[in-house]
Amino acid sequence: MLFARDLALDLKAGRLTAPALLERCAEAIAEQEPEIGAFVALDLDAARRAAEKARPDTPLAGLPVGVKDIIDTRDLPTAYGSPLYAGHHPAADAPIVRQIVRMGGIVPGKTVTTEFAHMAPGKTRNPRRLTHTPGGSSSGSAAAVAAGMLPLAIGTQTGGSVIRPAAFCGVTGYKPTFRNLPTLGMKTFSWHLDTMGLFGARVRDVAYAAAALTGRDLDIGERTADAPRIALVRTARSHLADAAAHAALEAAGKALERAGGTVHEIDLPEEVEAADAVHPVIQDFEAWIALSDEYDRAADQLSPGLRAHLEASARIEVGAYDEARRQAKRARQRLGDLFADYDALLTFSAPGAAPEGFASTGSPAFNRLWTLMGSPCLNVPGLQDETGLPVGVQVVGRFGRDRAALLVAAALERALARR
Amino acid sequence: MLFARDLALDLKAGRLTAPALLERCAEAIAEQEPEIGAFVALDLDAARRAAEKARPDTPLAGLPVGVKDIIDTRDLPTAYGSPLYAGHHPAADAPIVRQIVRMGGIVPGKTVTTEFAHMAPGKTRNPRRLTHTPGGSSSGSAAAVAAGMLPLAIGTQTGGSVIRPAAFCGVTGYKPTFRNLPTLGMKTFSWHLDTMGLFGARVRDVAYAAAALTGRDLDIGERTADAPRIALVRTARSHLADAAAHAALEAAGKALERAGGTVHEIDLPEEVEAADAVHPVIQDFEAWIALSDEYDRAADQLSPGLRAHLEASARIEVGAYDEARRQAKRARQRLGDLFADYDALLTFSAPGAAPEGFASTGSPAFNRLWTLMGSPCLNVPGLQDETGLPVGVQVVGRFGRDRAALLVAAALERALARR
Repeated sequence: MLFARDLALDLKAGRLTAPALLERCAEAIAEQEPEIGAFVALDLDAARRAAEKARPDTPLAGLPVGVKDIIDTRDLPTAYGSPLYAGHHPAADAPIVRQIVRMGGIVPGKTVTTEFAHMAPGKTRNPRRLTHTPGGSSSGSAAAVAAGMLPLAIGTQTGGSVIRPAAFCGVTGYKPTFRNLPTLGMKTFSWHLDTMGLFGARVRDVAYAAAALTGRDLDIGERTADAPRIALVRTARSHLADAAAHAALEAAGKALERAGGTVHEIDLPEEVEAADAVHPVIQDFEAWIALSDEYDRAADQLSPGLRAHLEASARIEVGAYDEARRQAKRARQRLGDLFADYDALLTFSAPGAAPEGFASTGSPAFNRLWTLMGSPCLNVPGLQDETGLPVGVQVVGRFGRDRAALLVAAALERALARR
Repeated sequence: MLFARDLALDLKAGRLTAPALLERCAEAIAEQEPEIGAFVALDLDAARRAAEKARPDTPLAGLPVGVKDIIDTRDLPTAYGSPLYAGHHPAADAPIVRQIVRMGGIVPGKTVTTEFAHMAPGKTRNPRRLTHTPGGSSSGSAAAVAAGMLPLAIGTQTGGSVIRPAAFCGVTGYKPTFRNLPTLGMKTFSWHLDTMGLFGARVRDVAYAAAALTGRDLDIGERTADAPRIALVRTARSHLADAAAHAALEAAGKALERAGGTVHEIDLPEEVEAADAVHPVIQDFEAWIALSDEYDRAADQLSPGLRAHLEASARIEVGAYDEARRQAKRARQRLGDLFADYDALLTFSAPGAAPEGFASTGSPAFNRLWTLMGSPCLNVPGLQDETGLPVGVQVVGRFGRDRAALLVAAALERALARR
């Protein structure tokens, strides 16, 4: 994999040039992309022109960043994973794309998304084992980073679309606090849930990128949390996690303890647990509105699964939706209280390693609640199941306290590397 | 003016046909539009075809609804008030447009917006006095309803862009609770503030439309609040309101008292007052991000005022922005407490009647705070200054309690009519 922060420092110091880095990526793409299928659009010539002009005095200094194809780009086509938008060229770049460019980054291509970032899979295969799903909906962004084709990629999460593919592909996935990265110019599925996130090799890599893209004090460098207080949380959905997921969670807890942290296994407050069930109410009520033009205009060009999903969603009553939002708000407050005693929660990233085959991108069962809570979340890789497939664990931080979450994730990453 | 709810009931009962209503609008448009300039796009032939197919069993039953040109429409061009988007045809209707059509309404035209719903005025003149501004940024929507060209129109408010033009044009303006109408497909200026709103003749008209568009229990019909408990609030910006605005606010309070309400003049909690100052921090930090493509691509095609505004906004620190959001959140909680004792607040809609001339669309000084609070707000017309220009007063309700706010506004409307 490519280490974004190290590369950025090399670029800034003149030890590496942006064109040379781009060629490294282009070679990896030439080699890996035919098998992986992480991209739906690539313009390496345009990227080469941008690399020639890259400025080492910018935070990203010529780093290539992949952008999930649910996000608008003026120059590269933007299809949202749907035949309805084949060849679509939006009128404007999404602000996150502008921000990448303003900070000196380069966008060489668009990465595969499931259809409208919902469940119908794209073409991407898991770089860790080609017969397995990379997860979704940010399939291409996770795979491009895992395969070493790009040092960084942008994804989005409405259920579990950043953390799950990161776990399945064995990379770091970071879903910042809700709205810390602007979602404008992404095709909306659910405006109370859609969250932009980042994929990179290590925690410090996504932290560096997030600092550049948000202007916030998130570049943790080599720092890690000192003696973090961790709540280990299996949640009420514990039975959905397989043996490998439980083993990984326990191993992660033990590694943190050995590194000087304290780990207490706790049950979530009932109100927080209960909020998991309201996620689909909010998501689906909003999806029916968000995709109303596509449904009204060309329902026959939606996948049968999405079409049926939207038709079921149309029956959600607005009263249930309003009550779901109130319940989520109370749960957010209650979850906040928990962080008086803990620096972060440690939980499953997914029910297990990447499932075999491509019919499904896997389950967001361990992600939906945290998306709804707006919490900063990281998938920390470094553990495997007995067949050698990556099994991630998830660090969940306090709303708005992303730096603390990143520091705990970095501590876990280091502790796992030392096992 | 055209009374939307009465017309809808006539359409549903077969006392009126959609084509006949559309012709009534078309005649008013033919007569008034050359002087008023409320529209940037009109397609009456398409509207006629839609009216022929209108179904009386739908809530809107063929009612024509104007849509502010900051909102995407596939068929009608969408220019966001900017030469940068002249002739632009978005790929999808905004969900609010789909919702109008799903509920049986017809969109005959796009109404004038200021440039990107900011301050650079459009061509619209005030139907109540042609030498005066109609207010902004929803200039065309307010004017189209005031001139009797349409029974309903959609606008948006980020500072004071629904309530102020409604006050200046002497119509009912209704800004629902934040996010009760979906803002997807409107050109974003500030995602924490942009709010969709409605213009109609009377309170029951916007209530009827809001019920149709949101599915919520808002169709108040002839009902009004019984003995409402009102807090009269002049705010810390009281000195910005002129004598006519103060006289109108007092007259409104007295009318409500005569109608059986109780009216107490109060000061807002300090934390709520202080939040007014953080509105521009949030708005402008987000505007610099939201309009990044337009600024980077073609700053020379922005008005000098907007360009300078964005350049100043670029200097707002993310820390100040994050603190502003925290302060707004605390103020929202504190404001909520106030509604234990009151059903609604009564305050200024604007500093006075519509200013003469067209250089400015007027001041949002009495609107920004309530936009930031996300509160449901209504401009209630019915009072005039000594020259006969309308002076509105504003009813502010509790977050999420739109029906209560509508009932108080309807009580005020009735009380003013009986003066």
